[in-house]
Amino acid sequence: MKYESVNQALEALAKHQATMAAYNHALGVMFHDGSTVAPKGSWEGRGQTMGVMSGIIYDLETSPENGELLTYLEEHAEELTPVQRRQVEVMRKGYDQMHKIPANEYVEYSVLMNDAQNVWEKAKNENDFASFAPYLEKIVDFNRKFAGYYNPSMEPYDALLNEYEEGMNMKTLDAFFAQLRGAIVPLLEKVMQAPQIDDSFLNQHYPIDKQRELSDYLMEVLGLDRNYCGIAESEHPYTTNFNNKDVRITTHYHESNLTYSMYSVVHEGGHALYELGADDAYNFTNLSGGVSMGIHESQSRFYENLIGRSEAFIRAVFPKIQEIFPEQLKNVDAEMFYKAVNKAQPSLIRTEADELTYALHVMVRYEIEKQMIAGTLAVVDVPAEWNRLYKEYLGIDVPSDSEGCLQDSHWSGGSIGYFPSYALGSAYGPQMLMKMQEDLGDVYEDVANGDLSKVTGWLKEKIHRHASFIKPDALFKSVCGEFDAKYFTDYLTEKYTKLYNL
Amino acid sequence: MKYESVNQALEALAKHQATMAAYNHALGVMFHDGSTVAPKGSWEGRGQTMGVMSGIIYDLETSPENGELLTYLEEHAEELTPVQRRQVEVMRKGYDQMHKIPANEYVEYSVLMNDAQNVWEKAKNENDFASFAPYLEKIVDFNRKFAGYYNPSMEPYDALLNEYEEGMNMKTLDAFFAQLRGAIVPLLEKVMQAPQIDDSFLNQHYPIDKQRELSDYLMEVLGLDRNYCGIAESEHPYTTNFNNKDVRITTHYHESNLTYSMYSVVHEGGHALYELGADDAYNFTNLSGGVSMGIHESQSRFYENLIGRSEAFIRAVFPKIQEIFPEQLKNVDAEMFYKAVNKAQPSLIRTEADELTYALHVMVRYEIEKQMIAGTLAVVDVPAEWNRLYKEYLGIDVPSDSEGCLQDSHWSGGSIGYFPSYALGSAYGPQMLMKMQEDLGDVYEDVANGDLSKVTGWLKEKIHRHASFIKPDALFKSVCGEFDAKYFTDYLTEKYTKLYNL
Repeated sequence: MKYESVNQALEALAKHQATMAAYNHALGVMFHDGSTVAPKGSWEGRGQTMGVMSGIIYDLETSPENGELLTYLEEHAEELTPVQRRQVEVMRKGYDQMHKIPANEYVEYSVLMNDAQNVWEKAKNENDFASFAPYLEKIVDFNRKFAGYYNPSMEPYDALLNEYEEGMNMKTLDAFFAQLRGAIVPLLEKVMQAPQIDDSFLNQHYPIDKQRELSDYLMEVLGLDRNYCGIAESEHPYTTNFNNKDVRITTHYHESNLTYSMYSVVHEGGHALYELGADDAYNFTNLSGGVSMGIHESQSRFYENLIGRSEAFIRAVFPKIQEIFPEQLKNVDAEMFYKAVNKAQPSLIRTEADELTYALHVMVRYEIEKQMIAGTLAVVDVPAEWNRLYKEYLGIDVPSDSEGCLQDSHWSGGSIGYFPSYALGSAYGPQMLMKMQEDLGDVYEDVANGDLSKVTGWLKEKIHRHASFIKPDALFKSVCGEFDAKYFTDYLTEKYTKLYNL
Repeated sequence: MKYESVNQALEALAKHQATMAAYNHALGVMFHDGSTVAPKGSWEGRGQTMGVMSGIIYDLETSPENGELLTYLEEHAEELTPVQRRQVEVMRKGYDQMHKIPANEYVEYSVLMNDAQNVWEKAKNENDFASFAPYLEKIVDFNRKFAGYYNPSMEPYDALLNEYEEGMNMKTLDAFFAQLRGAIVPLLEKVMQAPQIDDSFLNQHYPIDKQRELSDYLMEVLGLDRNYCGIAESEHPYTTNFNNKDVRITTHYHESNLTYSMYSVVHEGGHALYELGADDAYNFTNLSGGVSMGIHESQSRFYENLIGRSEAFIRAVFPKIQEIFPEQLKNVDAEMFYKAVNKAQPSLIRTEADELTYALHVMVRYEIEKQMIAGTLAVVDVPAEWNRLYKEYLGIDVPSDSEGCLQDSHWSGGSIGYFPSYALGSAYGPQMLMKMQEDLGDVYEDVANGDLSKVTGWLKEKIHRHASFIKPDALFKSVCGEFDAKYFTDYLTEKYTKLYNL
């Protein structure tokens, strides 16, 4: 046996984790820089470096020494602490998965990601799906292949879903989405027949430097410590984290749209609070960072919708928003603003969708991903299928691929199977809120005063601090009991019935 | 013998260089991010990662395989191309040097650099030398030790000088600085007795967003392709490059000082043009990037002074500057502006110093570094010695360490022996200009039209494209013949005699 003691093996485990954390940190900063401030023409060189680094990471993750280490620690599992056991479990999962992907494919894929990101950005700007199609095709092929490597006994798309949310599969999601459709579609029909809300004032000219001021204010209200959380601008908003003392959110400003960036900041701020709230102990280990996409989205959408689109929150922040945009909002009050940011209507862009129709946008992507991975939908036919589904689910015509199947960065980033997490996350939220209010009473009194400390304190205690220590399903259950999408549909029904006097 | 053929060894050489380039790229981006947009509180985590990565780099650079590779290639030197031979030579130098530094000291030093940068920034802001002193002490100790490792037969400070400019030593510099002092000090005395230039309009309120607009304009005039060159803001302006398609300059804006950022952009722009002008072939090899600090500074100061502070350049850019700041510059014309940006007077801050007194600032640092490394000046006594030398050389009193020995980022960044390069670079420029005008005729006609293409084309052909292929002394000689500081002192004498009607 190579290791003379459990402690010696644990030392090797800690060293390996610190090393991998360093590589991920460095690559993460490169990615973030590339997506925000790097000169556009720098992408090829960055691709070369990320290719080299990915090859090194692959070698480090798949080394025979790691296999020995894992086996040794698994054999001595009873001598480990729960945290160490979970570290071994997470490392084992990654080890097994990477072992299944040949090194050359792993590196090729990493380089493809860098290239695809740039091609997609250009394609989106120029409404040119054809230029992106060959990249998407390669990405789909890689993902189908990877799915087979991960778990050859599963349907490929199930294997991919499982990557983002352990235990998730098409059977569960088909039922989940059917339940949502059953509640949302009739509700939306009633909403569309009711008198419409005027939200035109949200689409006046809102200068970007003033919107930046609003972002700063919102980060303050959210309680995001700027000493540990940065904000930048990118094509598509996202959050990235290097450890719990270095989290970055991004947004994107549109001059004639106040709410796009506003709710991007609140949404990404929710992700950031999750990462900032992790216990220090998990930094530089493989348990750092949020545990799953579904739980992550539950946090971001909690802040975006359950908090950010609540009457109480609008009451708290509207005076400042009006102060920043006195001209644009001179004839608007908090009540009108609240209604406008909650206006429900079929629309084209997922990230700008209202709370009610949002899940329908996700369903379109879910259906397309299922078919692409199954091989029943050719990439070249994605735009037509996208447009057909938007017509079917949302009743609207898609005028261009830029506003259609090119709108999201996920596919170009290699994330296939991620989208359902958005709907799951949305559905987790109201159940958590119910539990929170059982514990704390009505949290909206504080929210109405711009004080989110109790809300964030509760989420930190129940969710954030655990980082990736507890598996997502167990974590949710430990906080809320069995998951039931009914909390979500009830919440939507109550909110929209009241909002539209249905 | 491990290698079966020269080609096999060359493949290993290329792979090693690409690997090291990737690590340096990743660490460079982390450093740049940390110096510009990263949240302040992120520095500890970044330090941890940079420590881990430095350890890995150290292991890779000092591996026995590299030793074998170098020996093999040196034995087959006659079969290599000149570029390959130079790659081996550069790799050998690094290999030998790193072999002399124990791994733990190398890693410890890397971590110290990250910490020191943050402590220095805070110390400078708070005028608190005492908090920085322990870090500077460690940095000096490390550098003295490293100097001994590099070349135990040299005086330690000579060994450090040699790192930044091969072949440079105290004997040469003492003579060089004496020659400069002999010309500059009497010239400055005459200037100070002449009627003074009014430059007070440069210190009105210049809003930072407008200064950003000026930076964009200046980058355009300099011919910096924004597709490959970014600009950011940091405590102290600098240039960094990851390859010839990804160069970043930084500046720092002061609201009541127009020229600080203006000439930072032009200075850093000169560095950037050097890096952007390198041949593609050197990317991701150890010959990428400028060859020495002296040559680098010759380029930055060429653009800053010989171009940027010329009458022709001011004539070209003043109309736009006036357009950006119509209120502030309404009573100013190009002639007044030209005189103002060239006003010579003893001052406190090196980076804001005029062309005439600049070398005196460098001499202060040179004298202090010499003594610190020799051990004849304790770190705790640096402020007093700094202030004494400013009084002696420039005749002025230093009111605070923030404006004194804490003003530069070099020492906190571990660069001891770098400062003399600034004076050398300044002195190289006029000799290059002489040669350039021999080849091209009067370049200032184009400059007066805002067209720097001939100037940059000539420098690219003679200097930039070679990256690190040709050694600095040989490079300078190949372009200009023997170096003579007289070109510099003659240039200063002519310029200031005319400017002040002496």
